[in-house]
Amino acid sequence: MDETTLLKETYGKTAFQLSGHGSRNASVLKKAFEGIPDEFESDKYGSGEVIEEFHSKIAGILGKEAAVFFPSGTMAQQIALRIHCDERGSKKVAYHPLSHLEIHEEDGLKKLHHIETVLAADKDRVVGLADIQALEEGVACVLLELPQREIGGQLPSFLELQEIAAHCQERGIKLHLDGARLFEVLPYYGKTAAEVCALFDSVYVSMYKGVGGIAGAVLAGTEDFCADSTVWKRRYGGDLISLYPYIVSADYYFDQRIGKMESYFESAKELARLYNAASGISTLPEEPVSNMFHVHFNEPKNRVALILADVHESSDVGLTSYLADRADGKGCSFEVSLGDLYSGVPQEKIIKAFQLLDEKMKTL
Amino acid sequence: MDETTLLKETYGKTAFQLSGHGSRNASVLKKAFEGIPDEFESDKYGSGEVIEEFHSKIAGILGKEAAVFFPSGTMAQQIALRIHCDERGSKKVAYHPLSHLEIHEEDGLKKLHHIETVLAADKDRVVGLADIQALEEGVACVLLELPQREIGGQLPSFLELQEIAAHCQERGIKLHLDGARLFEVLPYYGKTAAEVCALFDSVYVSMYKGVGGIAGAVLAGTEDFCADSTVWKRRYGGDLISLYPYIVSADYYFDQRIGKMESYFESAKELARLYNAASGISTLPEEPVSNMFHVHFNEPKNRVALILADVHESSDVGLTSYLADRADGKGCSFEVSLGDLYSGVPQEKIIKAFQLLDEKMKTL
Repeated sequence: MDETTLLKETYGKTAFQLSGHGSRNASVLKKAFEGIPDEFESDKYGSGEVIEEFHSKIAGILGKEAAVFFPSGTMAQQIALRIHCDERGSKKVAYHPLSHLEIHEEDGLKKLHHIETVLAADKDRVVGLADIQALEEGVACVLLELPQREIGGQLPSFLELQEIAAHCQERGIKLHLDGARLFEVLPYYGKTAAEVCALFDSVYVSMYKGVGGIAGAVLAGTEDFCADSTVWKRRYGGDLISLYPYIVSADYYFDQRIGKMESYFESAKELARLYNAASGISTLPEEPVSNMFHVHFNEPKNRVALILADVHESSDVGLTSYLADRADGKGCSFEVSLGDLYSGVPQEKIIKAFQLLDEKMKTL
Repeated sequence: MDETTLLKETYGKTAFQLSGHGSRNASVLKKAFEGIPDEFESDKYGSGEVIEEFHSKIAGILGKEAAVFFPSGTMAQQIALRIHCDERGSKKVAYHPLSHLEIHEEDGLKKLHHIETVLAADKDRVVGLADIQALEEGVACVLLELPQREIGGQLPSFLELQEIAAHCQERGIKLHLDGARLFEVLPYYGKTAAEVCALFDSVYVSMYKGVGGIAGAVLAGTEDFCADSTVWKRRYGGDLISLYPYIVSADYYFDQRIGKMESYFESAKELARLYNAASGISTLPEEPVSNMFHVHFNEPKNRVALILADVHESSDVGLTSYLADRADGKGCSFEVSLGDLYSGVPQEKIIKAFQLLDEKMKTL
């Protein structure tokens, strides 16, 4: 068995895991539907009580006029940028070099809309006011991702966000929020979702990251923007006859978890401290600003995998199922997103696991 | 209450309904998941046992090298046509003037791919060999819908299909099957799905029409075609982290219903005879070639709605929840798709309902 497989298998066998909400299995769906009666009516091509009520609920929470449920954030965000481009009469948008649209969507934005992308900021830091001020002419829309996932979930200050928003408004540049993990950063900002979203013309939030639903996303903005997005949703084939399996689950887990974001944030800070105290390990950011962070090693994947697998087997505590090569070529890393599981792990188990990890890392 | 609302409400209150599989409510999902254990693992971005096994199963049934599950047929078919266009180096496709792509997708094909559409055949008949022979130069792909839904579900003969396929192959034109209701026409053709699909380069089948799943579609073709379609699925935002709510349901109802298509077809012929025997009513086609047909009236919607509502209330048998204006401007119509419900309606109830319908139509 190679090290990658070993790491994955030993992780799968641990009784306790530090990251996430638990396995993405059928229990997630079944639990959400336990309280749903048989005669509960499906939505139908974007209409019906289940979808319309969820639209109103999320629009209200985000402080926007309207909201539209989408099967995915990929679809929602491409559509948001296209609408802003059409309104501004330009085919140019700006975002971080490691935006989901740039690296995870097979260039959908470019292939489907012929939109040109301007990469703001360096790969290893968040987009700041200076980056926006330095943008070339003709940018229709700026997309900001809060937190910037691919660099461990970093954030600009709220003040800088306000300055960026003011600058964009002044220049007639639309500002779109990639809020895949928006709810997860609210405790750090000490703001409501509506207070953050007020800085943006449009907002996307995910229903399966911190919320932990099965899949799906919500796009929010003005009534006109949402009406346009509904037409594009039909064009994309996202206007399914029934989206209720995702909506019911999203709604159920949203209510369960929206009040726990503070606790996930506190757990993330605690867990990051444990990693940083271990030999040869650091986290990015050093102090998390959300429920997530990346764990960095300077050693190659195969060597680290053996150590982590050993910790899994000896402690019964799962740290990660995978390791990725670091973008800076300096070793490897994995991502941690705190969720429901962490608080269920006995404290002494965690301490034991990190003692073992520290000891084994010292042998490298 | 206006006539439209009255028709819908009286239909909703009937104990027996002639069309469909029953209400699209949460029981459809819950029933499909009854036998699924909690630990049943989700698919993940197109991988995993649940999605890969379903791909193999449907590819096998359609006699194609590979298959890909999509959230919707809209997405699947636009992608199929784009791939064929790219391969042929042309941006022109031909299909029936009432194709789903032309009238129900907000011009997604044109807006997202800048593909030009050539409308083959007149609106009121199916596409035939002569239409294909008469196509202008440069058509990359022909899409045929079997059965042609918007004209009551009509079909060309199997011989004509074979001739069309031979002609396309000879001219290097790709042939794509819009098989939203493919399984429903197999009893009429007396062919297997694979025998029909062998005439086509690519095939889309729906999982929520005759099959009666919750949503979703499968696109099938060569390995290369399916690999390309998977990339486009990601670009569209259709490569969801979890599609299993749709896949499990599709698989469950496919197994339940694939053997009943003959019975739905026989019921459709029987029911069409009953409509045609009633005063002032005809069906299109007169003798169905699948589980579906349209019911035509020469009178305006409001007058017909009152009669149908009256039949609903007097007979407890639901005929339709809606009426649409006929495209030819000559009155109104509704669509019937035979499914599980018909065989559960007592014969004497049906006879009574049609006696009432005939009597009331005579008063018009």
